[in-house]
Amino acid sequence: MATVPSVSYSITVRLEVPAGGKAVSLLTHAVENAGGVVTALDVTNAGHEKLRIDVTCAAKDADHVQAIVDSLGAVEGVAIHKVSDRTFLMHLGGKIEMQSKVPLRNRDELSMAYTPGVARVSLAIARNPEDARRLTIKRNSVAVVTDGSAVLGLGNIGPAAALPVMEGKAALFKRFAGIDAWPICLDTQDVDEIVATVRAIAPGFGGINLEDISAPRCFEVERRLRELLDIPVFHDDQHGTAICVLAALTNALKVVGKELSEVRIAMAGAGAAGTAVLRLLLAAGARNVVVCDYRGAVHLGRDDLDDSLRWIAEHTNGEGYGGDLRGAVKGADVFIGVSAPGILAGDDIAAMAKDAVVFALANPEPEVSPDDAREHAAVVATGRSDYPNQINNVLAFPGVFRGLLDAQANGITLEMLLAAARALAAVVTSEELGPNYIIPSVFHPDVANAVAAAVRESAGGRARGFTEA
Amino acid sequence: MATVPSVSYSITVRLEVPAGGKAVSLLTHAVENAGGVVTALDVTNAGHEKLRIDVTCAAKDADHVQAIVDSLGAVEGVAIHKVSDRTFLMHLGGKIEMQSKVPLRNRDELSMAYTPGVARVSLAIARNPEDARRLTIKRNSVAVVTDGSAVLGLGNIGPAAALPVMEGKAALFKRFAGIDAWPICLDTQDVDEIVATVRAIAPGFGGINLEDISAPRCFEVERRLRELLDIPVFHDDQHGTAICVLAALTNALKVVGKELSEVRIAMAGAGAAGTAVLRLLLAAGARNVVVCDYRGAVHLGRDDLDDSLRWIAEHTNGEGYGGDLRGAVKGADVFIGVSAPGILAGDDIAAMAKDAVVFALANPEPEVSPDDAREHAAVVATGRSDYPNQINNVLAFPGVFRGLLDAQANGITLEMLLAAARALAAVVTSEELGPNYIIPSVFHPDVANAVAAAVRESAGGRARGFTEA
Repeated sequence: MATVPSVSYSITVRLEVPAGGKAVSLLTHAVENAGGVVTALDVTNAGHEKLRIDVTCAAKDADHVQAIVDSLGAVEGVAIHKVSDRTFLMHLGGKIEMQSKVPLRNRDELSMAYTPGVARVSLAIARNPEDARRLTIKRNSVAVVTDGSAVLGLGNIGPAAALPVMEGKAALFKRFAGIDAWPICLDTQDVDEIVATVRAIAPGFGGINLEDISAPRCFEVERRLRELLDIPVFHDDQHGTAICVLAALTNALKVVGKELSEVRIAMAGAGAAGTAVLRLLLAAGARNVVVCDYRGAVHLGRDDLDDSLRWIAEHTNGEGYGGDLRGAVKGADVFIGVSAPGILAGDDIAAMAKDAVVFALANPEPEVSPDDAREHAAVVATGRSDYPNQINNVLAFPGVFRGLLDAQANGITLEMLLAAARALAAVVTSEELGPNYIIPSVFHPDVANAVAAAVRESAGGRARGFTEA
Repeated sequence: MATVPSVSYSITVRLEVPAGGKAVSLLTHAVENAGGVVTALDVTNAGHEKLRIDVTCAAKDADHVQAIVDSLGAVEGVAIHKVSDRTFLMHLGGKIEMQSKVPLRNRDELSMAYTPGVARVSLAIARNPEDARRLTIKRNSVAVVTDGSAVLGLGNIGPAAALPVMEGKAALFKRFAGIDAWPICLDTQDVDEIVATVRAIAPGFGGINLEDISAPRCFEVERRLRELLDIPVFHDDQHGTAICVLAALTNALKVVGKELSEVRIAMAGAGAAGTAVLRLLLAAGARNVVVCDYRGAVHLGRDDLDDSLRWIAEHTNGEGYGGDLRGAVKGADVFIGVSAPGILAGDDIAAMAKDAVVFALANPEPEVSPDDAREHAAVVATGRSDYPNQINNVLAFPGVFRGLLDAQANGITLEMLLAAARALAAVVTSEELGPNYIIPSVFHPDVANAVAAAVRESAGGRARGFTEA
């Protein structure tokens, strides 16, 4: 998948070499000759005759791992013992756990945390249901719900295979916003059943994060749950992406000195992310957008419009452009891709307006080679961590939910999403702003708090329902 | 609710007294005069003129709290500031949290725990679904599911009010068996919807603990889920109670030198717990049982038998006894109550056979006063922690699920329940065994491991389905 060695495909090769020879000095070269990158070399046992060494290195893919191991094995005197995949080691037994916040050391503590003491707490909530936000985990808990139908770029791999991703998401919620999230992987892909299940489990959670549910089902699932529930429902693939794109575009347009209401925007992708990005851009003031899917520009003359595409056609492409993506990109100020790899070439970017902005967010392989794009565009952003300007949902969802939970919000509004995007953009100061820094790093310490404060303020006391664009 | 001061109703009274006077020495007396018990007295601020003191004491109920506070306030020079309920303080923000087991300090760790590294783990599980038990939280996670219809002795208080109890249960799972449990409080009490919801969320869990679901719906919910799911489903109110009762009865009969197959057993209660206790007793060899509900003995001649009562009538009361509970208890060797408070008197226990065994498990007020029962019976057990022989489900469910998860069991069998009961009984050695020690303390360090080992062994590799008695 990856074109360069990545720590996400990191292996540790345990091997033995003669203690006296020069084999040990050849190990790093052997890895490098095979195209790998050594990140650690630990002698784990030093005897008189043999050294046991753990060589940790980054590889590209499974074939590359084999090539590296072969290269190491070819060094004279080396005996290969065991090859461990560090990513798999990290996943053994799962990545998250439940912890008790109360001690249960003795009878007294037991009788306060459980029966009989807990009965009074339950009765208090029965009398005043709002107390659940004060006296239970509901105050800080989010369900990360998926049906496994559109997991990362892997497609419909089902709920069990989606679980490692949802665990990772839960870990990110805690790491970046102190939120207690728990994965709920659904053994159904039926919209009615998804809605009924999430509605049924909602009492124990303060928010619902929908994740990796394929379009167009995700739209209906979210819409119906928002009508049914009195806690916020947020489909991260849609709105998390939209917040990050709007924040990045806000700053990119500052770099090139253009106005959102004036620029011509060509988009590739009319799925969950594309539709949400479009809605937020329009709400923020964009007026000239053409959206393309794999059949070309979306316009009212097409005979294949479902509800979602029809909405797009009604709100974009005022000139009724009916051509393909390359034609739409020609002369455009901004290209935003949330679609498929390699659908544009450097020439297409060269044909854009002066000081073009290119967001090629297909992952791991963008719509256009970032290197090619950077030759012709003024600002380039991708979803990848190995280029500047990574547009990553981790910038949005932790802070969004922190703000929603702190406000005890009953719903989520478009205004909250706009506020989150503005706050995220504002983390980049005018001194820092530049073509290679339009969006902060995911590790920037201010991001989650800034986004949370904006959402909390926008939520006021309690927001109910969702205002569509 | 309680008749004696209990730490589960523990308050802290913040007050100020003159530094020089004798008020401080009168505080403990003031609490005791009101019938409270001082458990701590902390001077939190000592000035020249005033001392600020936190008096912590155990009370009986809300009226008693007021009486104690009034008594303290009547001490000359005392100014009452704030009265805090320690049980409520312990519950603020909930009792459990989610913790990440993996560090997310930098980009490398992020790209192993989340995208792109996690994609390979997801693909591995997609190819081999059994790997979910190795590479995800499924290996160690249990959903604690309730519909809030029969919470403790509080009745149908609903899902939100049940949440503190389920959080406590989850904390117990971790404390006693290292299991990661998460509460799922359902906003429905419809059997079809409960079954559909639990089925839908099952992929992320290694087991389902049903909790506080009222009879007879709990029987159908459990039966149908066991048919649908490939993970164990265990209704603790039924089977946890049954395991503890059988273990305690096994040891109690050793104390009095009687055999389970020979004794006459009178039971009060034909609900979830009673039915499960009966089934396990029969499976263990009991042959002479009469079960009574609030209408008297269950027998085939009654015209109000639902499926569950009919099963009881078919498997008990061979003589067709049609009288009331007091008649059934007369001459019986064993009384087991899982029903209602104060339905028997000391005289009824006196009318039992010689060396009678009395398990009065209604909580907090037993079927018969434990003090009265102890005058006439050889062995008495209750559900209360302030008498010897407390029969508490915490003795069973943590070890049961530990064993099931470790065996990667696909279901749960009656043989596993019997094995758990035998193992629990065997924690009490023959040297320790006596009328006041038929069942170990919940804090006995061997309990969970002993039960887990027995269940794991009984589960063998994988057990599927559930064998009814």
